[in-house]
Amino acid sequence: MIHQQTLEIQTHGRGTINITRDIDSAVNESGIQTGLCHVFVRHTSASLIVCENADPQVRKDLENFLADSVPDGSPLFRHTAEGVDDMPAHVRSILTNMDLCLPVSQGQLNLGIWQGVYLYEHRVRPHRRQIIVTING
Amino acid sequence: MIHQQTLEIQTHGRGTINITRDIDSAVNESGIQTGLCHVFVRHTSASLIVCENADPQVRKDLENFLADSVPDGSPLFRHTAEGVDDMPAHVRSILTNMDLCLPVSQGQLNLGIWQGVYLYEHRVRPHRRQIIVTING
Amino acid sequence: MIHQQTLEIQTHGRGTINITRDIDSAVNESGIQTGLCHVFVRHTSASLIVCENADPQVRKDLENFLADSVPDGSPLFRHTAEGVDDMPAHVRSILTNMDLCLPVSQGQLNLGIWQGVYLYEHRVRPHRRQIIVTING
Repeated sequence: MIHQQTLEIQTHGRGTINITRDIDSAVNESGIQTGLCHVFVRHTSASLIVCENADPQVRKDLENFLADSVPDGSPLFRHTAEGVDDMPAHVRSILTNMDLCLPVSQGQLNLGIWQGVYLYEHRVRPHRRQIIVTING
Repeated sequence: MIHQQTLEIQTHGRGTINITRDIDSAVNESGIQTGLCHVFVRHTSASLIVCENADPQVRKDLENFLADSVPDGSPLFRHTAEGVDDMPAHVRSILTNMDLCLPVSQGQLNLGIWQGVYLYEHRVRPHRRQIIVTING
Repeated sequence: MIHQQTLEIQTHGRGTINITRDIDSAVNESGIQTGLCHVFVRHTSASLIVCENADPQVRKDLENFLADSVPDGSPLFRHTAEGVDDMPAHVRSILTNMDLCLPVSQGQLNLGIWQGVYLYEHRVRPHRRQIIVTING
């Protein structure tokens, strides 16, 4: 059985948004008990990560790491027409991935207790992001 | 339903090749309307990415970033028997991934308008690469 | 058809463990001939990679690269209550991924000849790690 739906998430500029509940709701709606839940962001400057969900500092530190490793305005980048944060957003999205696949067990996402699913907005300005959720079981 | 096929892609040495049409053709052949399309490269020195498909400079900038972050001939690497680009190719492949899963909707890949699927050759010399496409729906 | 099982792997501290045979055994048990095998680690400080399986130096060089790029005790990180290796373990896990999806063909993982599947422990101390394997075909 396949269940597919689209979520729209409004971001607040660069940073992470916990979407675990949104994904779990889609799993619940599907009625699928055992299988896989695939999540895909239809953009090239936002990504999907699984991250520690207890201490918000973890996601700040992750942001510090990415800002340091893929700096806005880096002289390595010439694709700057859309701003100094655009090309870093593409690189960050590729390093952290636009697709994510998670197990479904007993009708729920089967995540570890410290795992959350986050949409990661890599652009400085807020965007409306489309996410396709496909549950297969 | 499961449809699986193998693609062989000749690369031209380090750089990206747009394989979106090849993948979409496999989806079309499968006849599957709603589901998932999984793509896998059977090598450890090439990878699969989703990337911005409008400005070729984006992929050049990505290459500049990877060449700078994982430099050929880095003193960090001792596995050099196959050349100074071999170990960087393994690291780049792991950072950018050999597997990719994409949603299928209405009989097509459901990508965002700016998203393309690329095979990324990380070795300097051309190679013939095998890709397994599995569509499930 | 869906087959799902949990593996528990004891790690020996930071480094990789070849789990290809464990995953292939799960595929074999499933009886599924053609499809996908999804692997997921239920932790945020360990990950799953496909890596060159012939020369162990490749995985040592990969570790050197990650230790250099995401250094323990980096001043970028403030989440240090659980030790200087904790936040780097989260970043490494996100860069190399907690989820992995592989093709199944003729009742086996369809990997390239040089590809192995590894659990990557990013914490310095040994841990017991849960992995969910879901085979769909």
